[in-house]
Amino acid sequence: MTTTDTTAEVDDPIRNGVDTATLFATLDAVRQAPEAARFQFRAHNQWVSGTHNRGTITDYYGVGQERSHERTFVFDADHPAVLVGTDHGPTPVEFVLHALAACLTAGLANIAAARKVRLTEVRSTVTGDIDLNGILGLDPQVRNGYRQITARFTIKGNAPAAKLRELLDQSRARSAVYDIITNGVPVTIQVDTP
Amino acid sequence: MTTTDTTAEVDDPIRNGVDTATLFATLDAVRQAPEAARFQFRAHNQWVSGTHNRGTITDYYGVGQERSHERTFVFDADHPAVLVGTDHGPTPVEFVLHALAACLTAGLANIAAARKVRLTEVRSTVTGDIDLNGILGLDPQVRNGYRQITARFTIKGNAPAAKLRELLDQSRARSAVYDIITNGVPVTIQVDTP
Repeated sequence: MTTTDTTAEVDDPIRNGVDTATLFATLDAVRQAPEAARFQFRAHNQWVSGTHNRGTITDYYGVGQERSHERTFVFDADHPAVLVGTDHGPTPVEFVLHALAACLTAGLANIAAARKVRLTEVRSTVTGDIDLNGILGLDPQVRNGYRQITARFTIKGNAPAAKLRELLDQSRARSAVYDIITNGVPVTIQVDTP
Repeated sequence: MTTTDTTAEVDDPIRNGVDTATLFATLDAVRQAPEAARFQFRAHNQWVSGTHNRGTITDYYGVGQERSHERTFVFDADHPAVLVGTDHGPTPVEFVLHALAACLTAGLANIAAARKVRLTEVRSTVTGDIDLNGILGLDPQVRNGYRQITARFTIKGNAPAAKLRELLDQSRARSAVYDIITNGVPVTIQVDTP
C-alpha cells in the first residue's frame, strides 16, 4: 500500500479516457445543486412499414435546460424474416440487451478511473432468453418479455481479479439500465388519433 | 358490418407492409411446434474509452438453430459532455426508450394488419424522467433508473379513433419490451478476469 502511495509516478487525471478531475468537479457541482441532476431523455420513432420503424435520438433536458446531442442518432428497428419482418435493424428486445451492456461498461470505466485502476480491455456479451409463445398470444402461461438475461464480462486491467470484479459489482450497483430492467419502471401510454 | 364484409375490394394479404398470410402461417407453425418459439437474443459490447463503447448485434438463436441477421448492426453508446462523456452515441438509457417505441410500433402494425386496418402514419415520442443523484451516489433515496416513462403516440389509419386506440392497447398487451420494462427481468452477471 505504502509503496503504491509513494510511487514517483505522476497521477494523470485522465485514466481510461475518463477526465477524473471533471468527473469529481461534476459530482461536487451536483452536491451543491441537486436539481441539476434532473434529466429527461427522449426517443422519437416513426413507423416505416410492417415491423420496420426508425428511431431518432437528439434532444434531452438536463442541468436546468433543453439540450441536444452533438449529432442526431438514427436507429432502424425491425424483425428478421423468420419473425415476418425485413431485417432492416435489430429487434426491439436486442436494443434492451445493448443498453444493459453499454451501461455496465460505461459505469465500470468511470468507477475504475475514480479508483485509479487502468483498464486495458472490457468485452461483454449479454443474452436474453425469450419464449415467443408469449407475444404470439399462444400460451397465457408465458410472459411477453425475457425470462432471464445473462451478462458475461471479460475485464483486464492493472488490478487483481478480485478488484476488477469489485469494480463491476459497483457498476451494477449504480447502473440505471440494470435498475430499470431488474426493478421495472411505470410506463404511461397516451395516444392522439387526429 | 355486412356492408364491409361484402365489399368488392379484394382482400390484399399485404397490409401495412405486413404479409398477413405469412404471419398467420407462422402462428399456425408455432401452434404445432411450440418449441420453435424459444429464442435467445444477444448483444456484444466492446469498451472504447471512458463512457464510449460499441455494441454489435448479429447472432441469435431461434426456430431450433443458430441464426444471423442479414447484416451486423453496430451501435456506439456514450455520455454527452455534460455527463463527462464524448457524445459518440446516445446514452444507454436512451436506447431503452428507443426499444420501447420500436416494440409498440412494430406490434401495432402487425395487429392492425391482422385486423384489416390500414395505417397511414404512426409516430411516437417516449420520454423517461430520471434523477441522476441516484447513479451519482449522492442521494440514497433516489433510484438509479427512470422514475417514470411516458409514450405519446400519434396514429392515423382507416378506422375510428376508438379502434386505433384499441389496436395500440393490444400492442401494449403483447409487447415484449413493455413487459420487460414494467415487470422487470432477473439479470445474472458473470465476470471473467484472465
